Amino acid sequence: MTFTDQLAAAWQKNNSLLCVGLDPDPAKFPAHLKGRDDAIFAFCQEIVDATADLVCSFKPQIAYFAARRAEDQLEALIAHIHDRHPGIPVILDAKRGDIGSTAEQYAVEAFDRFQADAVTVNPYMGRDSVDPYLAYPDKGVILLCRTSNPGGSDLQFLDVGGEKLYERVARLAAEQWNSSGQISLVVGATFPTEIARVRDIVGDLPLLVPGIGAQGGDIEATVNAGKTAKTTGLMINSSRAILYAGRDEDFATAARQVALETRNTINRYR
Amino acid sequence: MTFTDQLAAAWQKNNSLLCVGLDPDPAKFPAHLKGRDDAIFAFCQEIVDATADLVCSFKPQIAYFAARRAEDQLEALIAHIHDRHPGIPVILDAKRGDIGSTAEQYAVEAFDRFQADAVTVNPYMGRDSVDPYLAYPDKGVILLCRTSNPGGSDLQFLDVGGEKLYERVARLAAEQWNSSGQISLVVGATFPTEIARVRDIVGDLPLLVPGIGAQGGDIEATVNAGKTAKTTGLMINSSRAILYAGRDEDFATAARQVALETRNTINRYR
Repeated sequence: MTFTDQLAAAWQKNNSLLCVGLDPDPAKFPAHLKGRDDAIFAFCQEIVDATADLVCSFKPQIAYFAARRAEDQLEALIAHIHDRHPGIPVILDAKRGDIGSTAEQYAVEAFDRFQADAVTVNPYMGRDSVDPYLAYPDKGVILLCRTSNPGGSDLQFLDVGGEKLYERVARLAAEQWNSSGQISLVVGATFPTEIARVRDIVGDLPLLVPGIGAQGGDIEATVNAGKTAKTTGLMINSSRAILYAGRDEDFATAARQVALETRNTINRYR
Repeated sequence: MTFTDQLAAAWQKNNSLLCVGLDPDPAKFPAHLKGRDDAIFAFCQEIVDATADLVCSFKPQIAYFAARRAEDQLEALIAHIHDRHPGIPVILDAKRGDIGSTAEQYAVEAFDRFQADAVTVNPYMGRDSVDPYLAYPDKGVILLCRTSNPGGSDLQFLDVGGEKLYERVARLAAEQWNSSGQISLVVGATFPTEIARVRDIVGDLPLLVPGIGAQGGDIEATVNAGKTAKTTGLMINSSRAILYAGRDEDFATAARQVALETRNTINRYR
């Protein structure tokens, strides 16, 4: 099943547009996990098992694993999601971007090694830096468009002949690069006006929207700006607000509670 | 010693602007290395030891290691370079780019885990995505500006109000983001006219120039366009043409020969 089909099925089955971001920071782990060799895996596994019926996708952020030499725990985590929660797509948040021959290696990393269903990719190097990921027909490619951070405006807001750079990226992605239907876009919840602009440009293309929760994006504005006619089309990501909702042994219960509330809040505005 | 000082010393000591890119592809390794558990390390180590007196830097490309679960061999390789060839800076070619809290993790990956002296970073997400790397005062940050691949033009050549996007990146980097003097830029050898434009904008800022060798960039045009008044300022990268110059047991000797010729050709035009 393709990433796009998996995502559509998960939207429906779990009645959810929520994506839980897995950004494991051991400094914030509950005390009983500290010191365990597999603490990162154990922490994420509990979060995953407590929220899998509430989400449309999981999004592990590879930097948190790579900084701690924990690629093996990332492999185990994604394998666990596929094994125990089949049908929930896994987005590897890696924001890779390189020339074709190197991008082929990154595609092997994301899809063969880690068995992700989709990967985030930076568009700065252009179409031939994206093609090697599209060569995997079942996989999704999620291009950065309008990122949620303040500095995102430095380049993405530049006028490129009557439209902004992020709008051009959306247009290129939707009109030229997406002949195979594998592309989605990242648009930050901190900029709902831009979510609406991107939605106008790209039709029903799925949007991955980080920035609610700890980054302060507004859920109502995000859903209103980004939903499609079918009231789907969005993967609204929350990481820290869910992962660190509780700080002791019942952290996964606390995480589930916040995930449930977030999903329901999103659904209220659909 | 800072990356910038190390680079300046290596330019002088080895009388070289050559950077050898370490993109290890086991399919191209000599037969006697195949099947070894540490084949990637062994291959790169021989290349490094055969060329270390001819280069101003080494540039391992992390994708080639990550695709094969060989981060441990990358760690060992960089440690070997620091141990056996002190003074030769190591650039981790990773092209990372993410929001600040995630960029902090990538900086840990590059500088603490892998002990690189510099890392390549994608500018699409703006200044706050670059700052976490600059927080390491001895390290270098090499921003993508004008990349060597054909698709590089898709975004980088867009007009952003009287100049092209890559020129704006060069200007932002040199005039606003580089107060600490840690930034260099990537400009592809396949576009010598743009190397000259970037040199005009950024003064003596070091430029990492991929694209000679297998990608076809012209050395004479590159050196003429990019050299500074001191006839330095460049790290001219060659990977495949050197790594795979020979295909049997004396591959490192063949690599040294090509590296020597490349260094001398570069020097002829300085």
